[in-house]
Amino acid sequence: MSLLVTGSIAVDTVKTPFGVSENCLGGSAVYFSMAASFFSPVRLIGVIGSDCPFDLAQVFAGRSVDLAGLEIRKNSKTFRWAGTYHKDINKRTTDKLELNVLAEEPPKVPRSYRDSKFIFLANTAPALQLQLLEQIDNPSFVAADTMDCWIQGHLDDLKRLLKKIDCLIINEDEAKMLAAEHNLIKAADAILDIGPSVVVVKKGESGSIICSADERFVLPAFPAAEVKDPTGAGDSFAGALLGYLAQVGRTDFESLKQAIAYGTVVASFTIADFSLAGLTSINKDDIDGRFKTLRKLTQF
Amino acid sequence: MSLLVTGSIAVDTVKTPFGVSENCLGGSAVYFSMAASFFSPVRLIGVIGSDCPFDLAQVFAGRSVDLAGLEIRKNSKTFRWAGTYHKDINKRTTDKLELNVLAEEPPKVPRSYRDSKFIFLANTAPALQLQLLEQIDNPSFVAADTMDCWIQGHLDDLKRLLKKIDCLIINEDEAKMLAAEHNLIKAADAILDIGPSVVVVKKGESGSIICSADERFVLPAFPAAEVKDPTGAGDSFAGALLGYLAQVGRTDFESLKQAIAYGTVVASFTIADFSLAGLTSINKDDIDGRFKTLRKLTQF
Repeated sequence: MSLLVTGSIAVDTVKTPFGVSENCLGGSAVYFSMAASFFSPVRLIGVIGSDCPFDLAQVFAGRSVDLAGLEIRKNSKTFRWAGTYHKDINKRTTDKLELNVLAEEPPKVPRSYRDSKFIFLANTAPALQLQLLEQIDNPSFVAADTMDCWIQGHLDDLKRLLKKIDCLIINEDEAKMLAAEHNLIKAADAILDIGPSVVVVKKGESGSIICSADERFVLPAFPAAEVKDPTGAGDSFAGALLGYLAQVGRTDFESLKQAIAYGTVVASFTIADFSLAGLTSINKDDIDGRFKTLRKLTQF
Repeated sequence: MSLLVTGSIAVDTVKTPFGVSENCLGGSAVYFSMAASFFSPVRLIGVIGSDCPFDLAQVFAGRSVDLAGLEIRKNSKTFRWAGTYHKDINKRTTDKLELNVLAEEPPKVPRSYRDSKFIFLANTAPALQLQLLEQIDNPSFVAADTMDCWIQGHLDDLKRLLKKIDCLIINEDEAKMLAAEHNLIKAADAILDIGPSVVVVKKGESGSIICSADERFVLPAFPAAEVKDPTGAGDSFAGALLGYLAQVGRTDFESLKQAIAYGTVVASFTIADFSLAGLTSINKDDIDGRFKTLRKLTQF
């Protein structure tokens, strides 16, 4: 089934204890699309400036990523982010954030995308997520991400969004913040009460968890000895998760379990190298092989 | 097979966001024995002062815990610990630490315990752990715990210990500290290089991991909505783990996987109530029931 993503396209500069990657391609929509395209065709909505040094058609060549929703604005600049990961690779500092084109009017959903069934609204202002969602005719399964600044500053908008989506994909600390609850399970239950029927909590190297009204599933992260650059891990996770669901066309709990296992596997490839190199260097067989390994590593 | 534990017996005062438990029974050997006794008879070695307000024979009544190795010193005082857990229940502050009898000569291993096959050396000075281990004739499987102060201050002793044991059971931060390595998988591999054939890393609410030279296994924590008092979680985990291994009399990797799943389950009961109440209120059927639930929550 058709899968649509709206999110950022970024020029990133990333420093980690293992090296530096200057002015590389990043952004939630890019990582998401690359990850999802292993499973399902993807429709991308995003906006860049004319300064963007990357040809996205070239980046996604040979992959089923529809760029009809990519807008290039002549007099605007592309979103730029620079960050440094610490020795404890779970911690990072933002060195520079230039919203540029992301601070302007958001891109429109092209007419050809309006029949999309699986939707991922990557992290941005919840009012914009709602505005984008309203342009889709009759979606089957809508997932969204959010972050601390929207929870703290735009909670009413966020709650309106939560009533319109099926699945919130959120980091552990942000889930606890949103629910004002320190226990993660209680936090997830409290978020379910606001609206979505499924909450997926990303716990970084501690794995992830799915909660619905009457079922739960917990999965560790893939135990990776090689972590070079965690940028894009969460969006790759979401990409593989939604990509798998769109591929099988189901969203029952058993399918969700498979989906977060694929999300976990694909994210583990993302973090093994800088920028998109961890994803562009693998194929579906690599993913399926590691999926089997993950099952072996976790089943008793 | 016979299971022996050496560790502390404590009078604890614990404050958590959910209440206060003053002068309650605690200590690594106590939590370990209570947890292990669901699976296997336990031989306890520990020492208390004449001020100890608890009758351990009464505490363990009806459980197969041999107290021949319990020493009560007339002119000594029992170890006392007081701590406060924060709203984020993973963080705690030690309010008071009175070593008392633990700062004296350690207890001896009774002659009747010398043929013990499964051994757990709870956290204490590694020189004392070695001294206790030397009194066992021919152990089959020796596991030990340690903590930051021994890694920082007694590393040579600790390395001598690691060459004599089969399994180190250690917290995540301490594993990274011991190996001087931020990546947990690399840290575990580095510890294996020092001596033990198995490393079990406890990650608190993020679960646990087993690493041997050629196999790994990762398991999330039980997703618990009720956490009242995390004291004793690690020792209960170790108790059920070693108790299960002693019960089945095997230490192959498949048995280790089952063992940490039982450890995870029993620890989840420990933290649901203060002091030992989470363990004294359950039976083996409760454990087996939650073991099945844990499998359902983690298998895909």
